[in-house]
Amino acid sequence: MPSYGRGVTSQNAVGDLSPTERSTIRRGRARAVADRAVLHAILDAGLVCHLAVVVDGAPRVLPTGYGRDGDTLYLHGSTGARSLREAGQVCVAVTLLDGIVYARSAFDHSMNYRSAVVHGDAVAVTEPDAKLHALRVLTEHLAPGSWDYSRRPTPKELAATSVIALDLAEASVKLRDGGPGDEEADVAANAVWAGVLPITTSFGTPVPAADLRGEWDVPGHVSRR
Amino acid sequence: MPSYGRGVTSQNAVGDLSPTERSTIRRGRARAVADRAVLHAILDAGLVCHLAVVVDGAPRVLPTGYGRDGDTLYLHGSTGARSLREAGQVCVAVTLLDGIVYARSAFDHSMNYRSAVVHGDAVAVTEPDAKLHALRVLTEHLAPGSWDYSRRPTPKELAATSVIALDLAEASVKLRDGGPGDEEADVAANAVWAGVLPITTSFGTPVPAADLRGEWDVPGHVSRR
Repeated sequence: MPSYGRGVTSQNAVGDLSPTERSTIRRGRARAVADRAVLHAILDAGLVCHLAVVVDGAPRVLPTGYGRDGDTLYLHGSTGARSLREAGQVCVAVTLLDGIVYARSAFDHSMNYRSAVVHGDAVAVTEPDAKLHALRVLTEHLAPGSWDYSRRPTPKELAATSVIALDLAEASVKLRDGGPGDEEADVAANAVWAGVLPITTSFGTPVPAADLRGEWDVPGHVSRR
Repeated sequence: MPSYGRGVTSQNAVGDLSPTERSTIRRGRARAVADRAVLHAILDAGLVCHLAVVVDGAPRVLPTGYGRDGDTLYLHGSTGARSLREAGQVCVAVTLLDGIVYARSAFDHSMNYRSAVVHGDAVAVTEPDAKLHALRVLTEHLAPGSWDYSRRPTPKELAATSVIALDLAEASVKLRDGGPGDEEADVAANAVWAGVLPITTSFGTPVPAADLRGEWDVPGHVSRR
């Protein structure tokens, strides 16, 4: 069984997901991970982002689908309705949970996670070819293989679709991994179990639609996922 | 194997997680689920929320831990740093993904999900007893059983902790379940497989901290999770 040590974490920008804030300050090993590949990997591994906009001076956040093409993030523009298209300035977060960190002290409990946050001005994608491309990216992110397998959008469907694009220029990554960061006195006391409970997200058995007629094999791009 | 029918969904407020927006409009069955028990259940099932604030007129969203006590949501106040405590007005979203909806058309692909969004003014929890209570709620949400098992916060740790409270008065729930909502012509063509790929989140095998000394059994509140 693998075990984590206190000092063996490779990239560790702690804080946001800790139940308390001190761990950020005390550990002092928080650092933004500038690596673009890490940013891309987090965005590619997530399925849903949380999109924040300002409406009449107040914050609004909503979950929505997205997809990445290079350093462009496409978002489903219907989210936030009118507000989004008026707002322009957005903030988008994608968060992946990797584990619950059980520490000796309640105070040092935390989570292992990978998180990307992107700031920027959302741009409406209106040109039909660009929109079709964006929809392909969105669909392939949600359901890889579906763009070629399923029926493509009609011009009417395309016109009814609202997509925004966001540049990944202003993006940051935070992550925490490894074991608990307990106080030395708590470690020395050795009175409490400590460790990490991993969290995994997985796909189950495909459930066919009730209105499918005849016998169907689940297509490979779904069954192999 | 269970199967979903197009018309059998019970509660279906579609839209935010669809790759396209038309499904919301066309289906016309979007509705907010007012049931408080559903709101509570979603909040209790999630582990991380996304907290949005406005900083200098711009939106900012960050993942953070939370916990619920009745109709009060406690959040880890260090998130958003100074901005949060200045902002007051916040918006918090908790989203649970339940499945990928594969439709006959790319356009009707969607996600099954449960989502709660809360608006309100965040209030700093400063009184020591109230803060201790909030920290208990936060800890027990993240790691049920840990409050009684692990070392409780010292006065110093408590003082170093920043917690905010948010009333659940202004909260809404959206969810989508069931199978794809394809066009009748696409269903009639019967040319494409359609259905739902369920998504599940689960806990793995606990990984003990490297600095645990001696032989340890994983405590029940961790191993049974």
